Amino acid sequence: MPRSTAKLVFFYLSFWAFLKMSLKFKNAKRIEGLDSNVWIEFTKLAADPSVVNLGQGLPDISPPVYVKEELSRIAAIDNLNQYTRGFGHPSLVKALSCLYEKFYQNQINPYEEILVTVGAYGSLFNAIQGLIDEGDEVIVIVPFYDCYEPMVRMAGATPVFVPLRCKPVDGKKCSSSDWTLDPQELASKFNSKTKAIILNTPHNPLGKVYTKEELQVIADLCIKYDTLCISDEVYEWLVYTGNKHFKIATFPGMWERTITIGSAGKTFSVTGWKLGWSIGPKHLIKHLQTVQQNTVYTCATPLQEALAQALWIDIKRMDDPECYFNSLPKELEVKRDRMVHLLESVGLKPIVPDGGYFIIADVSLLDVDLFDMKDSNEPYDYKFVKWMIKNKKLSAIPVSAFCNAETKLQFEKFVRFCFIKELVDKDFKADIINVKIWS
Amino acid sequence: MPRSTAKLVFFYLSFWAFLKMSLKFKNAKRIEGLDSNVWIEFTKLAADPSVVNLGQGLPDISPPVYVKEELSRIAAIDNLNQYTRGFGHPSLVKALSCLYEKFYQNQINPYEEILVTVGAYGSLFNAIQGLIDEGDEVIVIVPFYDCYEPMVRMAGATPVFVPLRCKPVDGKKCSSSDWTLDPQELASKFNSKTKAIILNTPHNPLGKVYTKEELQVIADLCIKYDTLCISDEVYEWLVYTGNKHFKIATFPGMWERTITIGSAGKTFSVTGWKLGWSIGPKHLIKHLQTVQQNTVYTCATPLQEALAQALWIDIKRMDDPECYFNSLPKELEVKRDRMVHLLESVGLKPIVPDGGYFIIADVSLLDVDLFDMKDSNEPYDYKFVKWMIKNKKLSAIPVSAFCNAETKLQFEKFVRFCFIKELVDKDFKADIINVKIWS
Repeated sequence: MPRSTAKLVFFYLSFWAFLKMSLKFKNAKRIEGLDSNVWIEFTKLAADPSVVNLGQGLPDISPPVYVKEELSRIAAIDNLNQYTRGFGHPSLVKALSCLYEKFYQNQINPYEEILVTVGAYGSLFNAIQGLIDEGDEVIVIVPFYDCYEPMVRMAGATPVFVPLRCKPVDGKKCSSSDWTLDPQELASKFNSKTKAIILNTPHNPLGKVYTKEELQVIADLCIKYDTLCISDEVYEWLVYTGNKHFKIATFPGMWERTITIGSAGKTFSVTGWKLGWSIGPKHLIKHLQTVQQNTVYTCATPLQEALAQALWIDIKRMDDPECYFNSLPKELEVKRDRMVHLLESVGLKPIVPDGGYFIIADVSLLDVDLFDMKDSNEPYDYKFVKWMIKNKKLSAIPVSAFCNAETKLQFEKFVRFCFIKELVDKDFKADIINVKIWS
Repeated sequence: MPRSTAKLVFFYLSFWAFLKMSLKFKNAKRIEGLDSNVWIEFTKLAADPSVVNLGQGLPDISPPVYVKEELSRIAAIDNLNQYTRGFGHPSLVKALSCLYEKFYQNQINPYEEILVTVGAYGSLFNAIQGLIDEGDEVIVIVPFYDCYEPMVRMAGATPVFVPLRCKPVDGKKCSSSDWTLDPQELASKFNSKTKAIILNTPHNPLGKVYTKEELQVIADLCIKYDTLCISDEVYEWLVYTGNKHFKIATFPGMWERTITIGSAGKTFSVTGWKLGWSIGPKHLIKHLQTVQQNTVYTCATPLQEALAQALWIDIKRMDDPECYFNSLPKELEVKRDRMVHLLESVGLKPIVPDGGYFIIADVSLLDVDLFDMKDSNEPYDYKFVKWMIKNKKLSAIPVSAFCNAETKLQFEKFVRFCFIKELVDKDFKADIINVKIWS
C-alpha cells in the first residue's frame, strides 16, 4: 500500500474511532447543555484561602450545640447507622408533622403527606421528575435559584420566565419588597399547557418575602388554570421585623395542588447534612415517593434521627426567644443591617432583604474599569465578581447566574453577598469588604 | 330545575372534577408503573417486632468502632457540618483514589474519575440517567438487584434480560458458581442498539463471584459491540475462600467504557450512611456529575469526612488480617457456613454463595400447603414468604422480586436470606430458623 494511502486509511480509522467515541460515550440527551454550574465555577475561583468567600450560602456561624451533640450521640448507636424507612425515618416524619401542623389547618399525615429527601434540592428534583412531563410548561420567576431551570429542562419541559420588576423608589432605601410581579404579565404566562409554577418565598437571591396579597394573586391563577405549585420555602424561619412568612399551601384551594419544600440545612445552619422535605397531599407526594425509590431510595439514618431530636427540642419552645427558629432571624437581622451599612459606605446600593441570608447590591455605581477582564461576552456581574476576587480577594455570586439567557441583561449590575457569617477577630467579616473595596 | 336534572348536573360536575384531578395530579409518564417495590412491601410485613427479619440486607452486627467514633468526633466540627464539594468531599475522593489505585493499573484522578453519590443506588441512577437515552437497550442479567429494571425504564430505555442458568449438579452441594451465563445466549442479546450491560459481582441475590474467564466473555462482547459496562461491585470485599473478585474495568479495553460502583454501607456495615461512589474515565464520569448537580448537588459532609478517615485507617493495614476488608469476610464466612448447615438441616436446599451476605434456598422441597394464602396470582415465593412471616415469624425476600415478569417462574421456588446477623443470646440468629421451621 503506498504511503499516502496508508496515511489516508490511518486518518479514516482515527476519525471513525473519534466518531464512535463521541457517539457511544456521549451524554444522554436529557442532560445536554446542563453541565455548567455557577457554584462550581465560583467555588473554584474562591478556593484561594486568602479570598473572603461571601458567595455560596454556607454559614460559618456555629450550628446550635444540641444539633451537633445529637449527631455525636447517635453515631454511637448501631442500628441508627443502618437503613431506615425509604420515605423518611419514622421519628423524623413524626417530628415534622408535629412542627408543621401548627401552620396548616389540618393534621399532616407523617407517612403519606411528608417525604424526606436529599436536601431541598432532592425535593425539587423529585417533584419535577414525578409530576412534570415532556412538553409541559413550568412558570419560573426571575431571578430564580439556579437549579430550577436545568431541572425543568431535564424533565423535557419548557420553563416560562416572568421577572420580578423594581418599582421606582426615590430617595429612600431600596427594599426587596419594591420588587414585584406584574399581575397582568404573570397571568399572560398561564395557559392550558402550564403544569406548575415554582414559587420561592423568602426569595433567593432578592430576600423578598411575598405578602398575603401577592400570594393570593398566584393562588387565584393556579386555581383558575388548575396548575400545581412547587413552593420552595427553605428560608421560612428567616424573616425580619415587619414581615411575615405565609404558606401558599394554606390558602383556600391550594393544599391539594401544592408541594411545600423545607430544609434542615437552612433551619439549623447545617447545610452539609443535606436533608430536606416535601409536604403535600397524598395524591401528589406518592409520585415524589416513586421518584425517590428509583433514585436514592432512602436518606442517611443518623442525620435523620439527629434532626428529629433537634426538632423536638425547638418544637417544645416555639414561643420562647431561645427557640432557634426565633433566635437565628434575630441574630441575622443585626448582620443584615450591618451589611447594608457597609455596602452603602463603600458606594454600593444594596437592596435591603426582608428575609433569607443574602443581600444583593447594585455594583455598577462603583464604575470599576473591567477592561482587562477576558471573556468579554460574559455579563457585567460575572466580570465584576472575577475582578473583585482577583483584585480585592473578596468573592460573591453574580445575580445574572439566577436568570435565563434573555433576562441576564436586566440583572447584570447586581451581585449577591451572603451574610450568615461569623464575627472575625471580634469584628464582622463584612468589615473586610469595607477595607477591601476602599483600599 | 327539576330534582333529576340537578342530580345529573351534580353527577356531571363531580365526574368533571374527578377527570380534571386525574389529569393534573397524575404522575409524569417516566415513572408510570414504577411505584411497586419489594422492600416497602416486605419491610411492612416484617415490621412486627416478633418477626425475625432476614429479608433486607441490613447488618445487625456492630459497624467497626472507629467508623462510629469518627462520625461522633466530626459532628462537633462546625465547618464539617456545611456544604462541601458537589462531586465528592476532597478528603474522601483522595482516600478512594489511594484505595483503588492498588487495584487498577493506573492512578485514579480523585477529581475527574471519581464521583461520590447518595449510596450505590445514587451511582446507578446517575450512570443510567447520564448515559442512557430513550430507545437504547440495556442488558440486565437475571436475577438482578431489583432497582435495575425501573431505573432503566425511567430513562425510557428497554431492559433486555438474560438469565443465569444452573448447571445440573448431582449429589454435591449446589454453589453459586454453578449458575452461569450461556455465552451464545448472552451474545444474542447484543446489537447496535445496546448501550450498556449492568454487571453485578459479587452477585446479589445469588452470591456468585464471576471468574476471570466469565468476565472476559462479557468484556469481549462489550468491546465488539462498543457497549458501556455499569459494574455494581458493592460486595467487592465480601468474597469467600477459594474465590477472587476481579474488576472488569481492569481488563484490556474496558477502563474507557466502564463505570465501577462501590458502597460505604457494604464496605463498613453502615448501610444507613447512604454513601457510594462511581469510578471511571473522565469522559463518562463527567456525565454522571451533570446528573448529580441537577438532582442532589452534593452528599452529606460529616458522613463523607468520617468515611474518609475510616478508609485511611484500613488503607494503611490492607495486608493485616485486622483490616476490616479482610476481617469482615472471615467473620461472614463462618456465618455463611452455619446458615448453609441450618437451612439444610430443616430440609431446604441452599445454594452456597461465594460472595456477598445473602444465601438463596430452594423452598419448594418443604412442600408447604399455601392453600389459604390469598392473592393467588402471586409467584410461589411471595406466597411462601408471607406464609413464613405469618406462621413462623420469620421474614426473607422472594427471589422472583429480582426477576422481570417473564423469568419470575424460573426463580419462584427460591427465597433469599440475609446472614450478616449478630449472635443472639450467644447463639446465631439463624438458629431461630431452625426452631421456627421445625416447630
